[in-house]
Amino acid sequence: MSGAHTVFDWARQARTGLPEVVLAESKTILQLRDIIEANIARKAALLLTRLTDEQAGALSDLPLQFNAMARTAALNPPASAESGRRIGIVTAGTSDLPVAEEAGEVARFLGMEAEIFADLGVAGLWRLLERAEELNGFDLLIAVAGMEGALFSVLSGLVRPPVIAVPTSVGYGVAQGGQAALSSALASCAPGLVTVNIDNGFGAAMAAARLLRVNG
Amino acid sequence: MSGAHTVFDWARQARTGLPEVVLAESKTILQLRDIIEANIARKAALLLTRLTDEQAGALSDLPLQFNAMARTAALNPPASAESGRRIGIVTAGTSDLPVAEEAGEVARFLGMEAEIFADLGVAGLWRLLERAEELNGFDLLIAVAGMEGALFSVLSGLVRPPVIAVPTSVGYGVAQGGQAALSSALASCAPGLVTVNIDNGFGAAMAAARLLRVNG
Amino acid sequence: MSGAHTVFDWARQARTGLPEVVLAESKTILQLRDIIEANIARKAALLLTRLTDEQAGALSDLPLQFNAMARTAALNPPASAESGRRIGIVTAGTSDLPVAEEAGEVARFLGMEAEIFADLGVAGLWRLLERAEELNGFDLLIAVAGMEGALFSVLSGLVRPPVIAVPTSVGYGVAQGGQAALSSALASCAPGLVTVNIDNGFGAAMAAARLLRVNG
Amino acid sequence: MSGAHTVFDWARQARTGLPEVVLAESKTILQLRDIIEANIARKAALLLTRLTDEQAGALSDLPLQFNAMARTAALNPPASAESGRRIGIVTAGTSDLPVAEEAGEVARFLGMEAEIFADLGVAGLWRLLERAEELNGFDLLIAVAGMEGALFSVLSGLVRPPVIAVPTSVGYGVAQGGQAALSSALASCAPGLVTVNIDNGFGAAMAAARLLRVNG
Amino acid sequence: MSGAHTVFDWARQARTGLPEVVLAESKTILQLRDIIEANIARKAALLLTRLTDEQAGALSDLPLQFNAMARTAALNPPASAESGRRIGIVTAGTSDLPVAEEAGEVARFLGMEAEIFADLGVAGLWRLLERAEELNGFDLLIAVAGMEGALFSVLSGLVRPPVIAVPTSVGYGVAQGGQAALSSALASCAPGLVTVNIDNGFGAAMAAARLLRVNG
Amino acid sequence: MSGAHTVFDWARQARTGLPEVVLAESKTILQLRDIIEANIARKAALLLTRLTDEQAGALSDLPLQFNAMARTAALNPPASAESGRRIGIVTAGTSDLPVAEEAGEVARFLGMEAEIFADLGVAGLWRLLERAEELNGFDLLIAVAGMEGALFSVLSGLVRPPVIAVPTSVGYGVAQGGQAALSSALASCAPGLVTVNIDNGFGAAMAAARLLRVNG
Amino acid sequence: MSGAHTVFDWARQARTGLPEVVLAESKTILQLRDIIEANIARKAALLLTRLTDEQAGALSDLPLQFNAMARTAALNPPASAESGRRIGIVTAGTSDLPVAEEAGEVARFLGMEAEIFADLGVAGLWRLLERAEELNGFDLLIAVAGMEGALFSVLSGLVRPPVIAVPTSVGYGVAQGGQAALSSALASCAPGLVTVNIDNGFGAAMAAARLLRVNG
Amino acid sequence: MSGAHTVFDWARQARTGLPEVVLAESKTILQLRDIIEANIARKAALLLTRLTDEQAGALSDLPLQFNAMARTAALNPPASAESGRRIGIVTAGTSDLPVAEEAGEVARFLGMEAEIFADLGVAGLWRLLERAEELNGFDLLIAVAGMEGALFSVLSGLVRPPVIAVPTSVGYGVAQGGQAALSSALASCAPGLVTVNIDNGFGAAMAAARLLRVNG
Repeated sequence: MSGAHTVFDWARQARTGLPEVVLAESKTILQLRDIIEANIARKAALLLTRLTDEQAGALSDLPLQFNAMARTAALNPPASAESGRRIGIVTAGTSDLPVAEEAGEVARFLGMEAEIFADLGVAGLWRLLERAEELNGFDLLIAVAGMEGALFSVLSGLVRPPVIAVPTSVGYGVAQGGQAALSSALASCAPGLVTVNIDNGFGAAMAAARLLRVNG
Repeated sequence: MSGAHTVFDWARQARTGLPEVVLAESKTILQLRDIIEANIARKAALLLTRLTDEQAGALSDLPLQFNAMARTAALNPPASAESGRRIGIVTAGTSDLPVAEEAGEVARFLGMEAEIFADLGVAGLWRLLERAEELNGFDLLIAVAGMEGALFSVLSGLVRPPVIAVPTSVGYGVAQGGQAALSSALASCAPGLVTVNIDNGFGAAMAAARLLRVNG
Repeated sequence: MSGAHTVFDWARQARTGLPEVVLAESKTILQLRDIIEANIARKAALLLTRLTDEQAGALSDLPLQFNAMARTAALNPPASAESGRRIGIVTAGTSDLPVAEEAGEVARFLGMEAEIFADLGVAGLWRLLERAEELNGFDLLIAVAGMEGALFSVLSGLVRPPVIAVPTSVGYGVAQGGQAALSSALASCAPGLVTVNIDNGFGAAMAAARLLRVNG
Repeated sequence: MSGAHTVFDWARQARTGLPEVVLAESKTILQLRDIIEANIARKAALLLTRLTDEQAGALSDLPLQFNAMARTAALNPPASAESGRRIGIVTAGTSDLPVAEEAGEVARFLGMEAEIFADLGVAGLWRLLERAEELNGFDLLIAVAGMEGALFSVLSGLVRPPVIAVPTSVGYGVAQGGQAALSSALASCAPGLVTVNIDNGFGAAMAAARLLRVNG
Repeated sequence: MSGAHTVFDWARQARTGLPEVVLAESKTILQLRDIIEANIARKAALLLTRLTDEQAGALSDLPLQFNAMARTAALNPPASAESGRRIGIVTAGTSDLPVAEEAGEVARFLGMEAEIFADLGVAGLWRLLERAEELNGFDLLIAVAGMEGALFSVLSGLVRPPVIAVPTSVGYGVAQGGQAALSSALASCAPGLVTVNIDNGFGAAMAAARLLRVNG
Repeated sequence: MSGAHTVFDWARQARTGLPEVVLAESKTILQLRDIIEANIARKAALLLTRLTDEQAGALSDLPLQFNAMARTAALNPPASAESGRRIGIVTAGTSDLPVAEEAGEVARFLGMEAEIFADLGVAGLWRLLERAEELNGFDLLIAVAGMEGALFSVLSGLVRPPVIAVPTSVGYGVAQGGQAALSSALASCAPGLVTVNIDNGFGAAMAAARLLRVNG
Repeated sequence: MSGAHTVFDWARQARTGLPEVVLAESKTILQLRDIIEANIARKAALLLTRLTDEQAGALSDLPLQFNAMARTAALNPPASAESGRRIGIVTAGTSDLPVAEEAGEVARFLGMEAEIFADLGVAGLWRLLERAEELNGFDLLIAVAGMEGALFSVLSGLVRPPVIAVPTSVGYGVAQGGQAALSSALASCAPGLVTVNIDNGFGAAMAAARLLRVNG
Repeated sequence: MSGAHTVFDWARQARTGLPEVVLAESKTILQLRDIIEANIARKAALLLTRLTDEQAGALSDLPLQFNAMARTAALNPPASAESGRRIGIVTAGTSDLPVAEEAGEVARFLGMEAEIFADLGVAGLWRLLERAEELNGFDLLIAVAGMEGALFSVLSGLVRPPVIAVPTSVGYGVAQGGQAALSSALASCAPGLVTVNIDNGFGAAMAAARLLRVNG
């Protein structure tokens, strides 16, 4: 029912009551209303991602919790971080925040606690170094960076928790579209770094849940 | 001392006695001998990766355990899987075995148990389906595939453990160099899949250790 | 007269009465009206593909059968599947439906029966497996998938009929524009798979007609 | 057992006695000997593709039929074209012959009759035009071309049988590796053309068998 | 004064009275008015290329001869084809016409006679063959084609005059942006073919003038 | 008979006595001997291009005129520049000489006079400026350059004769393979410049003959 | 605070009173107002770059000095060129002016004198040669060019001061996006040339300040 | 005389006695001997770069100072760092040393003092931080890194001297050929960083000399 994004537990079948995540972008308002109302009717949890401004406006009468920067809307989200898992989300610049927010909303919807640390790019290395100990307190870190993506290698070499890299399409010239940041994540000299697709905050949070055995 | 590959715990400084992994490929025989003899002297564990045939021949007098397919040589490896962690390594074809073997050797050297399941590509889907329950018994799976890399999405949607994709440079035409398989891993419709660089069996095992908090 | 798309039988000249397919996208409203009215006058069949919203609106007064999702409009289409050929069109996700619908409309216009099976991507492998026997009943299958395109290899390895892959431009990051799905089709480990251009539902249906010797 | 190339009927399981095709390139002499001797023992048919010179030399004592240009070796091939299907293989230049020969050997091994028409590239258009009627007599045509691949569009627009394009890596500069020819096949203005991977003569013959329902 | 496009004779300095060609696209209405009025004042000839719709509208009060499809506007163009040179411009499809028209306008402005032959792509090979003798009557031919660009090789092998290829950005999927057509022109098996940049009708006409020593 | 390279006049059929050019690279010694001896027998002219060292050695007993740098061998070449046409070939560096020599040999074989001006790259701009008047004396210029290919724009803006650019694969990093030089030729700000494929000295000479109506 | 662009001296910490440069493009009007008003309050200097038309309009009531072509706005800029350093900015065409203006505004804001020399591309080589002596009078030159970027090599070989290349995204076809000009800068045969990202006028001025030890 | 590499002062003409740098790679032994002996005769300084092993062996009888790792050979190099300029060369890994050594040899030959700091990649960030103050003592820094090139941004943000990035072709998968490291340098978030071509140690040293006005 949910296009490209589906809750990862679906493949295990049968498990009921798990929250559903739906990629809104390519759906019509009508299709989205149908999905939402069906979930309201059965009091189920639901998360919409990549909502367009137009979609968000047209659904504003429904009992959804919108996050404009993350472009998400949640229905009956879980009340607290049930899993007890805590993830930290680090961004290189303020332009990377929408992707970080998407990761955060998905993570929270899946029962994890998520905290965002913005603007810790390596141009201001000291700010990152000052937070290293705090970052070591998380179960897993998601690094979000565009441009040259140097944050991935630096963060991964600096802290103990596992790190998932999310390259973003932020940048121009050779960085346009995120290819430079993606290459930096994949070619990183920091051992143990793993990567997801460009701008895929959703996928990073899903991977975090899977790696931390949330709902497992 | 170890070029691009370094044991991930180094960044945490000071921790002593941890096994060292050295990328052999770009080093001279002399440099390798020095490194090995220094480790023999202090009875330390050491793993060499990406040994060329010429290097392996020139070092054959030393007390190393060679794995020709993996292109590795181990000195004083740990006696058993100390961490209690078990990973499964699944390959699409027999041509992907060298990368899988490298991942296996590194994983075992880091204290994990590692089992390889060869030739479970999606062209023979039933063979993969038959092993699904067995694969569910591992703490983490590493999927190794070249060509079109369809194994990544299928395996990730089929099993419960987290999956790390290792695209390989196996293939010709549009698959040459591994770009097609890498794109398949990154663009996968299976949520929660993470990826490392092409042919990077070493990196996948390092990531597994970090994600499973081996030595953590 | 019909830009890039022309009915494949034209090259054989002289054969009369064959349906004409016209690529609308780059034509003016005036040019389209001229073409349609000429065909009305001689009671000929005509199919327009890749109609823009603006073109569809401006031609709404004419006796055409519009398919908004397929972006097609048919004039005097054949009443039934004259050739007796049946093709199945399988999509990975709902976002691939427009390309599948275009393939379906062209196939029907050329005298084949066409049925669409939506949302059978490999993330929900069991749904695909459940339909395998049904899919075996068709003369030929068209697989339509974007993102990583794993459907092509899995479907082709699973069923008996020949399979034509149509990669779509659905996806973001490394999947943007359809290159990842195209590479997956071309590099597929499943023998006997053939491919057409990205988003080319028209071409897949034309190829089906030619391969099945419809009008042959 | 056969790496990337496997007989397409395997997926249907259980059907016995079908010929096996094995991609030799990445296998050791020892592995190849084992496979061949097992097939000799059970009097089964076997085709090796992409044999290196070294492999061919080392296996020359075995009862195989070698085709040096095609880089194939056949064991117990079928005596005649059992299926009654006839395919024509057209090359643009003499440098495309190895790929054409591979397609021919695989086609014959699968029970089809295969005839090669060499050097009919569009630079000498009249030679191609003179053969058009003869080419119309085949059930299916395989077009093999490197460089700019103009043969694909011209042939496909000229004849009635379905055409499978096999781009080759023949050429230099922008044609290097076959990407220019592949793009020409995929972007062709000739409707109904389908394509396989660069240099994939094997795949084209497998597709022909599947499309013509040989062994079907 | 004229950005990227400048009349090729400028480099020879000093020669006065030669027609000026100005690339309009990146200039403001004000800048264009200044240029035009200066040329009106000194009764000089002037050609504007790549006019946007907005620019054309804003300049419609001036004594210019507009060609909407070519996106050109001419001031005081030469009255006849002074050089006595005749060029033929052949397009593969109707979508290639804007580029052909630009080439035609520039050619005429430089003193050549220019005739356009539309829609002679190789999918309808016979139409092209029928015009071959007529095309042989020109001093030089410009071939304009997008998609797979097979026209370049076929035309160049078919006729006697020199041929300049102009790839166009017409097409989708692998043809998007014109790279496939450009590669076909450069990798062509037809000897003696030369190429200019994608969509560069202006450049092809300038090259024709230079090669034919118009104004030379 | 001559693979990818064929004398451009062949397409016009029937014209007899014209010299034949054969691309040697992908032919066997045996095939080359057959071609050469057939031409010796009928006292015909013949030019072999892209001879490998091994081929040249194996054919050294035959009455051919070898040019090692150009990698050509001529049989019965024309005694003088029959056409009266003179072309100048300008290289940016000494590494571009092999391509320039190939162009020169082909040009002379086709009846033109050809003179090479080596090492006139723009890093030493004054040397180029000093030769400008001399270069103006030729009917056509061929510019041969690798690396960044700035020579194409500078030469084309500096002189009167038409200029054909031949990008070469000389260079490393971003220049590797000749793509940077090719882009410079195609994107040149100098109007009237035309281009052939990377390293295609043969094609440039063929184009010169065609543009100058040698043998026309 | 300033996204991707930050004054280079920040990394040295503690130095106070230095001018701040903020990349406006991805910020909201609200965020920009907050930043500007905070700087007004503490009488600090501030430069906004890459302002959109909408942002510039919404901030027009504030005491900023706007440069529409450069897309910058300055608050309390330094009164004169305090450093005594003089840089020359040379453009190939008028379309490169916005990038040149950005470089100029940033340079002046950092305390350097900056003069722009427009339209000195190599198609009109004499104009560039005439300015060479004048250009030799600057401490450093910034060369701004799109299309084929031949200016970089020619200028760098012609003058004494160090040259920084700024490729621009001006151009179409193979030049689209600036990749051709970037390659020309990197592959240049002129020794001592250095490069920054496509369209990065800001970065070139920052590099100039750093190389000339302004504020050092 | 010196192919692609020429001493940057040549363009200023007339200045005599300046050291000459010659790119050896594409020259014959004979050509190199001629150049060297001419310089011996006039007691001139000469530096050969990119010597192959074979060339170095064949020239070993001449009075040259060879640096095997740098692949250079110097004749009559200057006795000391005449310019008083000091540059630091920082490498990410030991595999980057050959490029660093080339930069060092060229720098010393041009009269600068050059010191190499090996293996300061960001995976071991503390080692780099510990050297920061020492690095601040140089007039200019050259950063040499392959793989993901994170060193460029980190170093540039950490120290005061200007930094020139030299991406190297060290790495595999997406890093192969150096494109990932090059993109990281160009897209860097650290303001004031400039870049040269992949593996261009020579160019970085030439740029350093020019930027520091050595011989200026």
